[in-house]
Amino acid sequence: MDIEQYMHTLGQQAREASRAMSRADTKAKNHALRAIATEIRAASDTLKQQNDIDLEAGKAKGLDAALLDRLELTDARIESMAEGLEQVADLPDPVGEISDLHFRPSGIELGKMRVPLGVVGIIYESRPNVTADAAGLCLKSGNATILRGGSEAINSNQALASCIHRGLAQAGLPTTAVQVVETTDREAVGQLITMTEYVDVIVPRGGKSLIERISNDARVPVIKHLDGICHVYIDGAADLDMAEEIAFNAKCHRYGVCNAMETLLIDSAISAEILPRLAKRYAAEGVELRGCELTQIILPDIKLATEEDWDTEYLAPILSIRIVEGLDDAMDHIHQHSSGHTEAIITENYDRSRRFLAEVDSSSVMVNASTRFADGFEYGLGAEIGISTDKIHARGPVGLEGLTSQKWIVLGSGQVRR
Amino acid sequence: MDIEQYMHTLGQQAREASRAMSRADTKAKNHALRAIATEIRAASDTLKQQNDIDLEAGKAKGLDAALLDRLELTDARIESMAEGLEQVADLPDPVGEISDLHFRPSGIELGKMRVPLGVVGIIYESRPNVTADAAGLCLKSGNATILRGGSEAINSNQALASCIHRGLAQAGLPTTAVQVVETTDREAVGQLITMTEYVDVIVPRGGKSLIERISNDARVPVIKHLDGICHVYIDGAADLDMAEEIAFNAKCHRYGVCNAMETLLIDSAISAEILPRLAKRYAAEGVELRGCELTQIILPDIKLATEEDWDTEYLAPILSIRIVEGLDDAMDHIHQHSSGHTEAIITENYDRSRRFLAEVDSSSVMVNASTRFADGFEYGLGAEIGISTDKIHARGPVGLEGLTSQKWIVLGSGQVRR
Repeated sequence: MDIEQYMHTLGQQAREASRAMSRADTKAKNHALRAIATEIRAASDTLKQQNDIDLEAGKAKGLDAALLDRLELTDARIESMAEGLEQVADLPDPVGEISDLHFRPSGIELGKMRVPLGVVGIIYESRPNVTADAAGLCLKSGNATILRGGSEAINSNQALASCIHRGLAQAGLPTTAVQVVETTDREAVGQLITMTEYVDVIVPRGGKSLIERISNDARVPVIKHLDGICHVYIDGAADLDMAEEIAFNAKCHRYGVCNAMETLLIDSAISAEILPRLAKRYAAEGVELRGCELTQIILPDIKLATEEDWDTEYLAPILSIRIVEGLDDAMDHIHQHSSGHTEAIITENYDRSRRFLAEVDSSSVMVNASTRFADGFEYGLGAEIGISTDKIHARGPVGLEGLTSQKWIVLGSGQVRR
Repeated sequence: MDIEQYMHTLGQQAREASRAMSRADTKAKNHALRAIATEIRAASDTLKQQNDIDLEAGKAKGLDAALLDRLELTDARIESMAEGLEQVADLPDPVGEISDLHFRPSGIELGKMRVPLGVVGIIYESRPNVTADAAGLCLKSGNATILRGGSEAINSNQALASCIHRGLAQAGLPTTAVQVVETTDREAVGQLITMTEYVDVIVPRGGKSLIERISNDARVPVIKHLDGICHVYIDGAADLDMAEEIAFNAKCHRYGVCNAMETLLIDSAISAEILPRLAKRYAAEGVELRGCELTQIILPDIKLATEEDWDTEYLAPILSIRIVEGLDDAMDHIHQHSSGHTEAIITENYDRSRRFLAEVDSSSVMVNASTRFADGFEYGLGAEIGISTDKIHARGPVGLEGLTSQKWIVLGSGQVRR
């Protein structure tokens, strides 16, 4: 198989399909989404059979239990994919939305129209449900998409691709609007991320190393999410009961998620009062604490945090704690160590809340709320294709709107430049 | 000189300065802009002296007349730079603008805040006025900037840098907020476009080859403007008087600009009527016409357009003309040959105007107006740093807003995830 030729064919087909998708009306797109959901439910047995082949191969290859778990398609997960597609059908269609129409002194009427990006390439790892989720979001936002899943999920993904193609056909949309790469050759990724003539944006979903590799080699723009080293800063003027609840929730609600707090910053003025209370809560959950030297004075039994701790996304029941001298010191720490995902301040001080909001340069900045709210569903985006820690184009949770751009439109009545 | 070390120092300084710039208030930024304008006016003699050195060196190197003209700083051009800075001071400050604040079911209040991108790298060619223009736009939008001008303008640019630094200092802003690269070594560009830790976006301004080279080698995101192959389509239902005026204006108002029409598409239904009228107008202006075979039937004396013509940005009094069979045929041609800059339809037909607006995938799409309106000033942006033919981030004319992004803000009263 000539991978370059194969990928270029996919690219050409996607580019062609993207024209049809950009003019597809909301009704046709929703028809397709619901038809795919129905096909997925109906193909449940086939999906599980194909998934079994992947699971067997994975076991034979010695994949670890966590990976095998992510790879598995259960009845519940199949139903959840179908429901996800129906939820995307229920979301408003962003395409064609016209905003800011106004007359200019020249007499032209100027506005912006929301339009699909064109062709979206998604590169992901073992979870086959991404195939349905990503296809659904791209479809609804009027994009064509090329999906490249992990090699360990190839049979599951191809079975899902069949369901997607049948659904697209039923709605009269081109089946090439969603193409799932059929080869596990790595060269296919190399092609996908450099075919600037066919692909408008790449969304990598997976671990940090995957995303870094893709960002380094891509010629196509990448909407990327590296790590989530999120901070909560408990200000001297915080409501300490509130601070305790938020600092507890931000760490303990779920550990393995990018919007979990990894470092807690505490104003020295209230550290002696709040730290023992928090330490008790964390201890009850089995969270390991690592602190700066000042923290160790208050909590003598904990480990000393190293420089590396401040730059680590634990994704685990571990928390680093630093006592700081007020807002500027806290923001300096954040500036140096944050990954630009989400930071929160707990304070009742008006001026410091405004400064934190304005000066902290992260995709989500919060006052008196848990970092765990930084999420497409909590933000009302309906679904998310990822959380961008980039500053260009999409920032924070990326939903349907992040898969679109705006073009200028001009409505005239014969105006010419003088 | 160790170029890598030098550029990394500039990068570090810019990153530090960007923090101060992002919190600088509107008053300080406007103070700096007006102070720089005053310094530029006061330094008029020095600027011309330094510019003379560049001009002499350019002549000695055998630069052509057009390049020497772009390089020259006249009194009028110096005054125009100063006025440009004062105009930017008069524009509204985009930074800190909060939009879409609304409550979510969880009780958090969610919105978006407009923030600077951080550090903007600008790479440009011979015109020294870009130094002042770009510095002004970046400053007002709260960004730090690293400017790398053409080697032939090095003395002019350094003299301008002194004015900028004095103006920044008077406003109490860090002089490192605007840094003009002091070496003409090409390696400096290579460093600038790959320092992802210090630079958030690159804006190349110059010819197509410069922009292509930079886009190919950059690791930092690039806001790029390749060529402007703009089309006007005269529909069968056009008002022919209007069509004549717009098609004339779009080609002849100015030739060397990216929003000038390069290809005229005409519905066969009205080609026999409109083409002779247009040919007369173009002939009077000395515009060379190149047409398809059908065009040649109506205008037998013109050259046959080659495939290459449809893909050429003439930037000259040359126009290619193709007769098409209606809207779909016209849009197929545009899809195949447009550079995604600006296209216009001339029609009185409601349905076709809507289809053209929705389906043509260019940064500006117009009905019954001249493509010449695709411009930052005409769009009311006040000034533009470039016209983006990308789909990601900024599309079309890029003003202050294109140099910012939006972060999410969450205002809570103690909310935690359940």
